Amino acid sequence: MVLEIKVPHGADFGALRPLLPTFLSYLLSFVYVGIYWNNHHLLTSIDRINGGVLWANPHLLFWLSMTPVATGWMGENHFAPATLALYGFVLLMAGVAFVILQNRLLAVNGPDSVLAHAVRNDWKGKLSPVLYCAGIAASFVSPWLAGAAYVFVALMWLAPDPRIERTLATGRSGHPG
Amino acid sequence: MVLEIKVPHGADFGALRPLLPTFLSYLLSFVYVGIYWNNHHLLTSIDRINGGVLWANPHLLFWLSMTPVATGWMGENHFAPATLALYGFVLLMAGVAFVILQNRLLAVNGPDSVLAHAVRNDWKGKLSPVLYCAGIAASFVSPWLAGAAYVFVALMWLAPDPRIERTLATGRSGHPG
Amino acid sequence: MVLEIKVPHGADFGALRPLLPTFLSYLLSFVYVGIYWNNHHLLTSIDRINGGVLWANPHLLFWLSMTPVATGWMGENHFAPATLALYGFVLLMAGVAFVILQNRLLAVNGPDSVLAHAVRNDWKGKLSPVLYCAGIAASFVSPWLAGAAYVFVALMWLAPDPRIERTLATGRSGHPG
Amino acid sequence: MVLEIKVPHGADFGALRPLLPTFLSYLLSFVYVGIYWNNHHLLTSIDRINGGVLWANPHLLFWLSMTPVATGWMGENHFAPATLALYGFVLLMAGVAFVILQNRLLAVNGPDSVLAHAVRNDWKGKLSPVLYCAGIAASFVSPWLAGAAYVFVALMWLAPDPRIERTLATGRSGHPG
Repeated sequence: MVLEIKVPHGADFGALRPLLPTFLSYLLSFVYVGIYWNNHHLLTSIDRINGGVLWANPHLLFWLSMTPVATGWMGENHFAPATLALYGFVLLMAGVAFVILQNRLLAVNGPDSVLAHAVRNDWKGKLSPVLYCAGIAASFVSPWLAGAAYVFVALMWLAPDPRIERTLATGRSGHPG
Repeated sequence: MVLEIKVPHGADFGALRPLLPTFLSYLLSFVYVGIYWNNHHLLTSIDRINGGVLWANPHLLFWLSMTPVATGWMGENHFAPATLALYGFVLLMAGVAFVILQNRLLAVNGPDSVLAHAVRNDWKGKLSPVLYCAGIAASFVSPWLAGAAYVFVALMWLAPDPRIERTLATGRSGHPG
Repeated sequence: MVLEIKVPHGADFGALRPLLPTFLSYLLSFVYVGIYWNNHHLLTSIDRINGGVLWANPHLLFWLSMTPVATGWMGENHFAPATLALYGFVLLMAGVAFVILQNRLLAVNGPDSVLAHAVRNDWKGKLSPVLYCAGIAASFVSPWLAGAAYVFVALMWLAPDPRIERTLATGRSGHPG
Repeated sequence: MVLEIKVPHGADFGALRPLLPTFLSYLLSFVYVGIYWNNHHLLTSIDRINGGVLWANPHLLFWLSMTPVATGWMGENHFAPATLALYGFVLLMAGVAFVILQNRLLAVNGPDSVLAHAVRNDWKGKLSPVLYCAGIAASFVSPWLAGAAYVFVALMWLAPDPRIERTLATGRSGHPG
């Protein structure tokens, strides 16, 4: 999975201007991949019982591996409606894959596990798919609105989540709950 | 080893249609690489004795590293006979390399090892090369049949294998057999 | 993040000559990425408390991921002013991201930690951004001067740093300070 | 560092024929990278004292990262003299970098270490650079001879080395020497 920006043609700063949409797409996808990287790390480090989730992991990885081509398509076509919609669809499927992974881990670890306490009241996980769907629909009406939806979800997850970190710290020091 | 899909030309959904064979090839190869990733992980985690298999690992990796070019050739040429046959050949050789790796591990760990119990009665490992060969032969007669053979092998391995997982769990809790 | 050199056209040594700027750019960037790799490894291995730095890490990685395109742009355009300035800007931002990461780690570990002793008197970290800015300004006056600034910073960090290594060794043997 | 083979144009087996030199180059380089991967792993796993070798590692990695472009150049130009010579030069420099890494490790671990016993009588390490130089010189006289030299060195290292493995096993069981 390699996000990349092609070397621009031309040797002055003007040669960078056509790259702006590509750069913005790259930046947004970099943030999303970073969010998944961090959350995946948090999720799997809370408890050791990871059995039974073997296929949930590559499923998430599959949709994340769709990010570069969706990002490139969107950036090279200056956020055209279809490209914005596909980008949102890939984000939506990655979000669904993450929820599946989380549910598999919860089923294995049980309702009293540290993990279960950490992810209860997961309003971000419930709001995200709604916003992705809104963004996909908005792609054909207002590209700016669709982009705003995707950026908003990213910012929402970027904000520190004291709940998970606190539970994680508690779990590490041996006092679940 | 980088599976990739090139950014399509054109900004509407119609631009995605020519990518369908490429996407299907990508998906199948992603599943195969995921299967090998999982099985390799299971195999090497059952026992700690991995000495004497140094070259069996890169041999498997070599054939897996042939996957992207075979995948791309097949996808870009809409499953033409020669491309289907080469794809099956790469799958066959990767399967052979996996059996060699497994046998090297068995020879090192002995017939009473947890590993030996886990992989006895390995009918999938015996059926796969037969189906690959059938697929290669079918490539020149019916591309659909060849594709079906490759997809069937993937689905066969995708199905959960309670045998290995049970043995793995048993091995971890210290009660082999 | 993939630094790469494209395969030259032509089969004799003369075909390598146009690659010289690309090779020099590649070499400089390889050294910089190596420096960050080493320093990041040293920094995070001194103390175990890495909490609260989750976003400082991908921030650094983002600017390092800008290195290949900036390197390629500079090399393919034979160190043109704008390309030299952008390259320096990427180095500057990576340097700033490293300082942020270091400060986050210091804030978590406290002023008496092994880490705090290791990075006190961090004159290299203070001199580097000044030299990057000088290099960016010099890009438009004298490309050689700008290149010299970037090479000098790399050599400055390449030189062994007995201070960190000594503190690291001390920290490992359990006698901080 | 990404070795790759481009997707061939044309959908029949005849389209694979022009790829033969590229495939052979890829195969040889894959074997070399595998050899370095294995030997590097053996070297660094024998003893835990890896301090003071920080720059010897990226130095080796730098020359290995030159392998793909040298491989591609050689394959795409059907083993033309200059491309064979450059390929040999990259192999030579990687070999030199490995010797430097080994010597740094030896200097840190001392003459009585497990490592020192493992790599004493290192005739392969001494013969390889001679054969690389012979191959570089032969590039301009007989491409076949140059290729044979590079293949011979690879086969020489591919052969199992009971000496290192025995010492490694001894070191692991706690009885150095």
